[in-house]
Amino acid sequence: MAPRPGYRLPKIPEMTVRRLSVYTRCLLQLEEDGVKTISSQELAERFNLNSAQVRKDLAYFGEFGVRGIGYYVSGLKAELHRILGLDRSWPIALVGIGNLGSALFHYRGFSRQGFRIVVVIDDDPTKIGREMDGVPIVASRDLAREIKARGVQVAVVAVPAESAQIVVDQLVTAGIKAILNFAPTRLKVPRDVRLKDVDLSIELETLSFYLAKGTR
Amino acid sequence: MAPRPGYRLPKIPEMTVRRLSVYTRCLLQLEEDGVKTISSQELAERFNLNSAQVRKDLAYFGEFGVRGIGYYVSGLKAELHRILGLDRSWPIALVGIGNLGSALFHYRGFSRQGFRIVVVIDDDPTKIGREMDGVPIVASRDLAREIKARGVQVAVVAVPAESAQIVVDQLVTAGIKAILNFAPTRLKVPRDVRLKDVDLSIELETLSFYLAKGTR
Repeated sequence: MAPRPGYRLPKIPEMTVRRLSVYTRCLLQLEEDGVKTISSQELAERFNLNSAQVRKDLAYFGEFGVRGIGYYVSGLKAELHRILGLDRSWPIALVGIGNLGSALFHYRGFSRQGFRIVVVIDDDPTKIGREMDGVPIVASRDLAREIKARGVQVAVVAVPAESAQIVVDQLVTAGIKAILNFAPTRLKVPRDVRLKDVDLSIELETLSFYLAKGTR
Repeated sequence: MAPRPGYRLPKIPEMTVRRLSVYTRCLLQLEEDGVKTISSQELAERFNLNSAQVRKDLAYFGEFGVRGIGYYVSGLKAELHRILGLDRSWPIALVGIGNLGSALFHYRGFSRQGFRIVVVIDDDPTKIGREMDGVPIVASRDLAREIKARGVQVAVVAVPAESAQIVVDQLVTAGIKAILNFAPTRLKVPRDVRLKDVDLSIELETLSFYLAKGTR
């Protein structure tokens, strides 16, 4: 079922990777419902997916379906977990513990997928030195030391736009290789660091585009 | 500069719409910096964009560049605002005012783009009847009445996964046409309602995919 050892993955579109995440959620739910096997058509119907798209996305990574049976739910889920790097735990640094940072800290979806916030960084003197659910809150002057000591490669940035670039520069210097950025600003990182912007108003703007189009 | 009256827009890829949002942010910043005109190359360099992509995205909507000059910053920004439906104010209902709901309530990016939260819906009895910055918090049994009275077409859902489908069904019944969903679950809506899921762990998973790939 898995790709041959030594098989080099072709360049995978980011939308395919995002859909793999969606498929793992669907498979998890099927597993919880006691479903053992499912066809791409059934999968598509049950979760509002496109069955041709499902087959095309999975085909990037190997041959997962079995003729006359479909997919083995647990087996496919385990494969997708491995492909997405979810078969391990990723220690995470959360920078900024305001409203958004707090919401992200408590967001169950992260820990469920193996993302574990191990350190919170914030320069509010009333917060430094405290703990949240056993996770220490440290000042940004200690950021590099904490990140190295805890083997953190991924950071989530939830600071105001004005301070985001400074924080990101510090994270890069400390050896962070992937950043999920919630600050509404364009950031610069070196080529070997993967930056993913989550701009919540862009999501609303795509909605307003379609609403406005309906009235034009 | 604008498309001819009566010109029917071709089907626009969602990624193009998302990038238009990014371009409006870049143009806003240029405007604030006093820049009057800019070429697609300069725009791309300054904001880490792809100049061919910029030209292709804009070409869906008309001919915006002027030979030898480039784009007029303010004019292009105004056009993109109109295309994205940002030349008007969209009243919004926010459902759920926990940590994430509070973060979204205070998220400056929304109001800056014309999205105005006009009513908050939450069934916590300690919150119902109160106001946040002048915005009333009402119980879900009053959802339909409030949404109709305030002409709301867009809702932001920030409730736990278990209650999301119930809330969304209520919103659809009340006449909501676009939903931005933060609950980590797959929801069903009628075809004429636009649903946009924001699953924050998917963003982290695309990062872990690329990190894991680097070590394979």
